[in-house]
Amino acid sequence: MIVLGIDPGYAIVGYGIVEYKNNKFSPISFGAVTTKAGARFSSRLEKIFSDILEIMETYKPEAISIEKLFFNTNTTTAIDVAQARGVILLAAEKMHIPVFEYTPLQVKQSVTGYGKAEKAQVMELTRRLLNLEKCPKPDDTADALAMAICHCHSASSLIFKQMTGGTK
Amino acid sequence: MIVLGIDPGYAIVGYGIVEYKNNKFSPISFGAVTTKAGARFSSRLEKIFSDILEIMETYKPEAISIEKLFFNTNTTTAIDVAQARGVILLAAEKMHIPVFEYTPLQVKQSVTGYGKAEKAQVMELTRRLLNLEKCPKPDDTADALAMAICHCHSASSLIFKQMTGGTK
Repeated sequence: MIVLGIDPGYAIVGYGIVEYKNNKFSPISFGAVTTKAGARFSSRLEKIFSDILEIMETYKPEAISIEKLFFNTNTTTAIDVAQARGVILLAAEKMHIPVFEYTPLQVKQSVTGYGKAEKAQVMELTRRLLNLEKCPKPDDTADALAMAICHCHSASSLIFKQMTGGTK
Repeated sequence: MIVLGIDPGYAIVGYGIVEYKNNKFSPISFGAVTTKAGARFSSRLEKIFSDILEIMETYKPEAISIEKLFFNTNTTTAIDVAQARGVILLAAEKMHIPVFEYTPLQVKQSVTGYGKAEKAQVMELTRRLLNLEKCPKPDDTADALAMAICHCHSASSLIFKQMTGGTK
């Protein structure tokens, strides 16, 4: 199974494509879509949309794993993150790729087995699971890879297979 | 000048196209894009994107006037409204139409001359300014028409013309 993990944002969108086969993970590609701070906001959304669409077209993931948003503090930033997330969901819909959402807690739990794990632990375990020499930078990319791992674990669980009628 | 006013949402997106010429308003078209409550969220975003894009292609407005979002209460709904707003901004960018944002206070001020006007007053004055028999329904449509009127007033003000180097 090939999964595209996405850490949504409007300045930096982290992405990571991961293959999961025989209980092993392989990183296929990862990085970040970035937009310029001074640019018109709608043009930043357009760059995110077209770049993410291109990644989907190139790697043809069978699922998107994206962080569920919660608004606690800094709602101005949160509005813009949500607007960017909207165009990412639109890209997935255009490509007919199903989208799965996970909370930060679920990702931590899935990667480290412990919901209260420190960010550094999640990153280190993501690095090890993917057999990478160094933890990918920026953090948004590492977060996106962790999102992808989380969905691979979740999708290969028995309950998920029963719910959806099976998956590769 | 032809302006498309939009009241963003994910279940109902109100829209109103208004022409402003010689200090007179004429309604060109108005209505609402609606999406089904039970549908997959990304498919609702796709419907909003394609329907709004079609409206832009049909009426070729020279500006979009859209409500500025603030999050106070009910942040779950607000996240989804912001995601929908993101795909509307993307449509505007694809069509190369500039986007202007106004707060509810600015719209009230512009339509009624009074920032603390009641919603009913704003609607009644919108109806009169557009010379309509009845106030358009749903409220989202009436709000979108008020947004369009607000931008027409704003864009024809001397300060705006000086700032942008003139407009029709």
